[in-house]
Amino acid sequence: MIDRAYALFEEQQQARGINLDLVKQKLQQLRIETPSWGYGDSGTRFKVYQKNGVPRTPLEKMEDAAQVHALTGLAPSVAIHIPWDKVEDYGKLRSHAESLGLRIGAVNPNLFQDDDYMLGSVTNSDAIIRRKATNHLLECVDIAKETGSRDISLWFADGTNYPGQGHIRKRKAWMYEALEELYKKLIPQMRMLIEYKSFEPAFYHTDLADWGMAYQMAMKLGPQAEVLVDTGHHAQGTNVEHIVAYLIDEKRLGGFHFNARKYADDDLIVGSMNPYELFLIFYQIISASEDQDASIVQTVNNIAYMIDQSHNIEQKIPAMIRSVLNVQTQFAKALLVNHAEVEAAQARNDVLGAEDAVRQAYECDVTPLLHMIREEQHLPLNPMKAYLEGSYDQAIQVRGKGGASW
Amino acid sequence: MIDRAYALFEEQQQARGINLDLVKQKLQQLRIETPSWGYGDSGTRFKVYQKNGVPRTPLEKMEDAAQVHALTGLAPSVAIHIPWDKVEDYGKLRSHAESLGLRIGAVNPNLFQDDDYMLGSVTNSDAIIRRKATNHLLECVDIAKETGSRDISLWFADGTNYPGQGHIRKRKAWMYEALEELYKKLIPQMRMLIEYKSFEPAFYHTDLADWGMAYQMAMKLGPQAEVLVDTGHHAQGTNVEHIVAYLIDEKRLGGFHFNARKYADDDLIVGSMNPYELFLIFYQIISASEDQDASIVQTVNNIAYMIDQSHNIEQKIPAMIRSVLNVQTQFAKALLVNHAEVEAAQARNDVLGAEDAVRQAYECDVTPLLHMIREEQHLPLNPMKAYLEGSYDQAIQVRGKGGASW
Amino acid sequence: MIDRAYALFEEQQQARGINLDLVKQKLQQLRIETPSWGYGDSGTRFKVYQKNGVPRTPLEKMEDAAQVHALTGLAPSVAIHIPWDKVEDYGKLRSHAESLGLRIGAVNPNLFQDDDYMLGSVTNSDAIIRRKATNHLLECVDIAKETGSRDISLWFADGTNYPGQGHIRKRKAWMYEALEELYKKLIPQMRMLIEYKSFEPAFYHTDLADWGMAYQMAMKLGPQAEVLVDTGHHAQGTNVEHIVAYLIDEKRLGGFHFNARKYADDDLIVGSMNPYELFLIFYQIISASEDQDASIVQTVNNIAYMIDQSHNIEQKIPAMIRSVLNVQTQFAKALLVNHAEVEAAQARNDVLGAEDAVRQAYECDVTPLLHMIREEQHLPLNPMKAYLEGSYDQAIQVRGKGGASW
Amino acid sequence: MIDRAYALFEEQQQARGINLDLVKQKLQQLRIETPSWGYGDSGTRFKVYQKNGVPRTPLEKMEDAAQVHALTGLAPSVAIHIPWDKVEDYGKLRSHAESLGLRIGAVNPNLFQDDDYMLGSVTNSDAIIRRKATNHLLECVDIAKETGSRDISLWFADGTNYPGQGHIRKRKAWMYEALEELYKKLIPQMRMLIEYKSFEPAFYHTDLADWGMAYQMAMKLGPQAEVLVDTGHHAQGTNVEHIVAYLIDEKRLGGFHFNARKYADDDLIVGSMNPYELFLIFYQIISASEDQDASIVQTVNNIAYMIDQSHNIEQKIPAMIRSVLNVQTQFAKALLVNHAEVEAAQARNDVLGAEDAVRQAYECDVTPLLHMIREEQHLPLNPMKAYLEGSYDQAIQVRGKGGASW
Repeated sequence: MIDRAYALFEEQQQARGINLDLVKQKLQQLRIETPSWGYGDSGTRFKVYQKNGVPRTPLEKMEDAAQVHALTGLAPSVAIHIPWDKVEDYGKLRSHAESLGLRIGAVNPNLFQDDDYMLGSVTNSDAIIRRKATNHLLECVDIAKETGSRDISLWFADGTNYPGQGHIRKRKAWMYEALEELYKKLIPQMRMLIEYKSFEPAFYHTDLADWGMAYQMAMKLGPQAEVLVDTGHHAQGTNVEHIVAYLIDEKRLGGFHFNARKYADDDLIVGSMNPYELFLIFYQIISASEDQDASIVQTVNNIAYMIDQSHNIEQKIPAMIRSVLNVQTQFAKALLVNHAEVEAAQARNDVLGAEDAVRQAYECDVTPLLHMIREEQHLPLNPMKAYLEGSYDQAIQVRGKGGASW
Repeated sequence: MIDRAYALFEEQQQARGINLDLVKQKLQQLRIETPSWGYGDSGTRFKVYQKNGVPRTPLEKMEDAAQVHALTGLAPSVAIHIPWDKVEDYGKLRSHAESLGLRIGAVNPNLFQDDDYMLGSVTNSDAIIRRKATNHLLECVDIAKETGSRDISLWFADGTNYPGQGHIRKRKAWMYEALEELYKKLIPQMRMLIEYKSFEPAFYHTDLADWGMAYQMAMKLGPQAEVLVDTGHHAQGTNVEHIVAYLIDEKRLGGFHFNARKYADDDLIVGSMNPYELFLIFYQIISASEDQDASIVQTVNNIAYMIDQSHNIEQKIPAMIRSVLNVQTQFAKALLVNHAEVEAAQARNDVLGAEDAVRQAYECDVTPLLHMIREEQHLPLNPMKAYLEGSYDQAIQVRGKGGASW
Repeated sequence: MIDRAYALFEEQQQARGINLDLVKQKLQQLRIETPSWGYGDSGTRFKVYQKNGVPRTPLEKMEDAAQVHALTGLAPSVAIHIPWDKVEDYGKLRSHAESLGLRIGAVNPNLFQDDDYMLGSVTNSDAIIRRKATNHLLECVDIAKETGSRDISLWFADGTNYPGQGHIRKRKAWMYEALEELYKKLIPQMRMLIEYKSFEPAFYHTDLADWGMAYQMAMKLGPQAEVLVDTGHHAQGTNVEHIVAYLIDEKRLGGFHFNARKYADDDLIVGSMNPYELFLIFYQIISASEDQDASIVQTVNNIAYMIDQSHNIEQKIPAMIRSVLNVQTQFAKALLVNHAEVEAAQARNDVLGAEDAVRQAYECDVTPLLHMIREEQHLPLNPMKAYLEGSYDQAIQVRGKGGASW
Repeated sequence: MIDRAYALFEEQQQARGINLDLVKQKLQQLRIETPSWGYGDSGTRFKVYQKNGVPRTPLEKMEDAAQVHALTGLAPSVAIHIPWDKVEDYGKLRSHAESLGLRIGAVNPNLFQDDDYMLGSVTNSDAIIRRKATNHLLECVDIAKETGSRDISLWFADGTNYPGQGHIRKRKAWMYEALEELYKKLIPQMRMLIEYKSFEPAFYHTDLADWGMAYQMAMKLGPQAEVLVDTGHHAQGTNVEHIVAYLIDEKRLGGFHFNARKYADDDLIVGSMNPYELFLIFYQIISASEDQDASIVQTVNNIAYMIDQSHNIEQKIPAMIRSVLNVQTQFAKALLVNHAEVEAAQARNDVLGAEDAVRQAYECDVTPLLHMIREEQHLPLNPMKAYLEGSYDQAIQVRGKGGASW
């Protein structure tokens, strides 16, 4: 049935004017980074439910991540979070990862769990705390050198809960000071990815609240600073794909933290709430990847796709498999947009025709295509089923409860 | 200055047609319940910062609550949360409270922190877990009998994170089953207050998501079931005072959980983000308190005003003092609305006149009035200053860190 | 290719345990009412762009609607709006519709365009205006008798723009009074569908603001009163399918006004913004249609599916074709959910398994199924293409600009 | 009573450490521009209700605006909208204004009411339409020269309603092209104010959707380009005062369009929904006005305060009087913040103390202060009462209905 399904799919896509060889090539290049912390326990402010079998050490997190990659072929790198993944010897962590077929991805500082940071880390009104926070940022550059990581991924919980609590413009200056010091320490092949978030844990103002603030900082810092878009960090009624297109056009889109949400920063499995939005994000990206401006194409090629979720109730490894598969599915669909057709409709101001040309790609079932890709890469056709039927999950139960957590 | 300020205030209000004797009488009757858990540590999913001096036991929580009441005269009762406030002998807890000039208020079951409840408590698909959850509800009625509490205050975290995860209509039936069993156990003078919440910790659907669901349950259960409005549990762009007026009119408004929010359920100090909204809520309530229908008036008189906040960064006792004072301030302002004037403007369809009549009351500075009330009650004019300059805060530092928390 | 595609589709669905005969039968029963006003000019407060060829009379609107039905087989009835569709002789309008293969659907009163209604129609503080408004409601029942319509579809713009402008509880009583008078005039086979809306054109409070208010009114009125869900009339972050399931369970879901939105009540083509939400609504409906309780099944069978959109920039007839096709597509996908599989996963608390079972149906491409249905009904395989290549659109250009509009 | 009230107020503010002379001086400098279109009919997409007495010509609009200024002393300039205010001889319009004690303020192009602009003006895919739109922008610079206006105020309705309808990045380039051409035509003393809006009338994407996009354009254009903040043009859950502070700090805040909203862009009377937000905006502005950086102070001094509302149901002139008074009230309150006290609390990380210091100023009743200011300026103490009791409103009734409108 798989071959017949693919044959039919091929025929249909050719009829739509789609070059499947190119599609397959781009699909094979898709890489999604999974986060070490996505394998540990996490939860809500009401409760963190501890799961049996979660990894107890950074090394075990790598082992779980290796499973996801082995079954999907999509996730060859793992982001780390310091100090959650603090180890004596990062060279050893790196070798361990490499021995599992992985590499260490982005390094994420943590500036929101030390008592000193309650009212701000790099934007604290206390200079000693700001110094401590900036030192931690610098430490992460050192770690990145050891792990061979390209990206320092920066999310700041800094903000205030009440009007008057902090001096907004002073805090802005302090934020820039810290970023500038970090920026100067970057080696040429490194990038600084600046994340923004509309709220939580700060409930009045967040120092870097939207893409505009992250972008303004990045512009002022220099070309190695780019913006990181977390899909759940926007106010309701924000067109995320518009921001994506805008940042690409300004050559400042560094990467994504993927997740899904229906309400606030729900951190659910990417693609599970409004999959069309994810498709439309990829539509903008793929459209830009065919731009005549080489620097736009380069920006697109350097986008880091990363998962950042909080699996409150899900089994950890299956949730991560589902996540990377959902990304792959929407990416594949977006590759089926016939851009020439869309642009022709746009040129003649044919609203419904242009919309239809985009939506049609979304409505395709890409299962035959994904099956073919997996077959060619000697991967299980159904990675989730393969995991659930495999022995790994059984084997890790011995770890017990109380492993790594936020 | 205080006497002169009050004299002038009196003159101004008389000119506005306000009967200050009545205002003062109603102000003196204002009672706001504080929650035992508001004195302990709480936080966000990112971090709970431990404060020095937080109470270590239910008894110590009562002592802290007694401070708030002693200084403000507003908070004579304390809501408890089971099992956070579980004690061997509730009679002893009650006596302790009474010895401090307090009484035990609403009893709040907790159905969101046991491992069994990860996917639902009373709406879990597992009948054994549902039974356990319902038993806990019943236990709370027993406790309420011992503590002399009138209200069982019900918030359920029950819901799902993904489409398909739960059978929405089955869960609705299970919810009703549990509530019905609880309802039957209530003694005549007891009430069941049903709270709703749009989301969190459930991120796809929450079994009791809005006032309509809580109301429908209450209607079906009977007259001792009423709705509890938590001011932070609505979608953005919800007119909360409209819901309040609607529920009063249907004689189903049982009480409030007060707090403030700018984004989601931020659980900040009530009145700190949009104080006008709090004023407008009280405007609806006070307007109804003068209704010709005695059952409407009775509904209003029985409304339980309760604080329910999460003080992530604030000092606990000062935050609670600020909270009850903010409620008192907006309540006082709402008492200054000249309803006859508003209704005359409404009757002649004078939009701006009616709006002005309401807003004018809000723009009054009620400090002279509150000073007078406090003076008459032998309370400190500035309760916050009195607390900060008193010795209690110093005395409790000996408790150290790591006290009670969520 | 079509036959091969269907053969493969059939095989795939059988492998998923889906009974395609049943699916096809339900698909053939799908009926979507289009609104007469959807064929005329409409716009935003900034501008109504006049299109060439829009119908000039109610009769011409029927002709346009007949095109949509002729090409899709989905839209055999047309909702009318009084006085926009006011005619001397409703019998003649009905005959005209019937001669085109259509019937007249829901009758919609209009209580928001007369100068008298600026500050409210049935909730105006002026009794004379209330009387006039109620009379219009009663007139609509008379019209419904003549047109043979089952449903009176009620949307009220009534509300206020400022705090204090109106007396919320009095207005509630006036609303009920009017509805009650209308209710008493219904003949047994008629239904009153009560719509709600969170805001617009009222910007402070809307008298019927949410499903809870519409439901409370319906409950009090009696069994012929039901709730009408307009998919765009909710605050952001509302789970619409939850409300749908809740209302079905209470046997009070009377129908839908379908449209799509990204921000407020954008009134875009249904299924164009978040098609998964539309699918999930149908998933709840179809799940309930298999309930063991016959009254639940009856509720589902009586749901009126209606389009209610504002085509600001789109060509009118193509926009309507796209709308009913989008509904058909998501309805078809929802029919492919294997409920036994979902419920088995729910029963074993398998979060990811249950989610996957629902999402899998959504990811199916239902084009082969829809082609087969159309072939069997002797309809064009691609109704949009058939319309665009047909002569009708050319023929109506003679109508010129300035036809019917809001 | 007024003198006694002021004496007491003075005493109280001195006790709070406030220099009332400075406060009064700043209050006297407050200038709020009213929009010519705010005096004409406007409404919602459902209905524009025509009011009796609305101005029929640009000259009559000036006369109405002059009333507002005469009674409040706050509104000496009037923004105009082209072509709504198109006249043969702008010199004559200017003289007329000046003869009434007014000057012409910002010039606002209109690019959303010509049929050509249905799918975009400066971002239309049709180069001829883009040219026409840009020409209109250039025409407005010419008009501004004649009227002596400093600011060209730019709001674009440009955007799309559906995914795929427009090429987002191409449209971005077209937007910049038009702005650049306009920018080059500015004379040195002119400014271009770039407004943004999250949605409406475009419902999928708006070309300039948020402050970040407006800011990026302004940065690229040069120092005469600044951002215009319309208080109603943000997603729910946006901290507007944070954006204000950010833009001031970047020296790119050019002005405001003031209005209030509870839901979307409701365009209600400023300060009527959440007055605390307006106060907090002014708190940021006034705080910056005392900055040591002279360019920050200069930015603040050049902020254009403008009303931009849509009075759907209100009487036009009274609504405008209320609007400027509400702005004055919150501005006055914000002047009472003791910045030294706030900053001292911030420095010691005293969350509640800092919040209290800000909120205290808000809770002051500034009526005595405003009365004194008005007395000193020989203005009526209660401008609204003066208007309603005056003869102007009676006199304009002769204009009849059907005057100027959107």
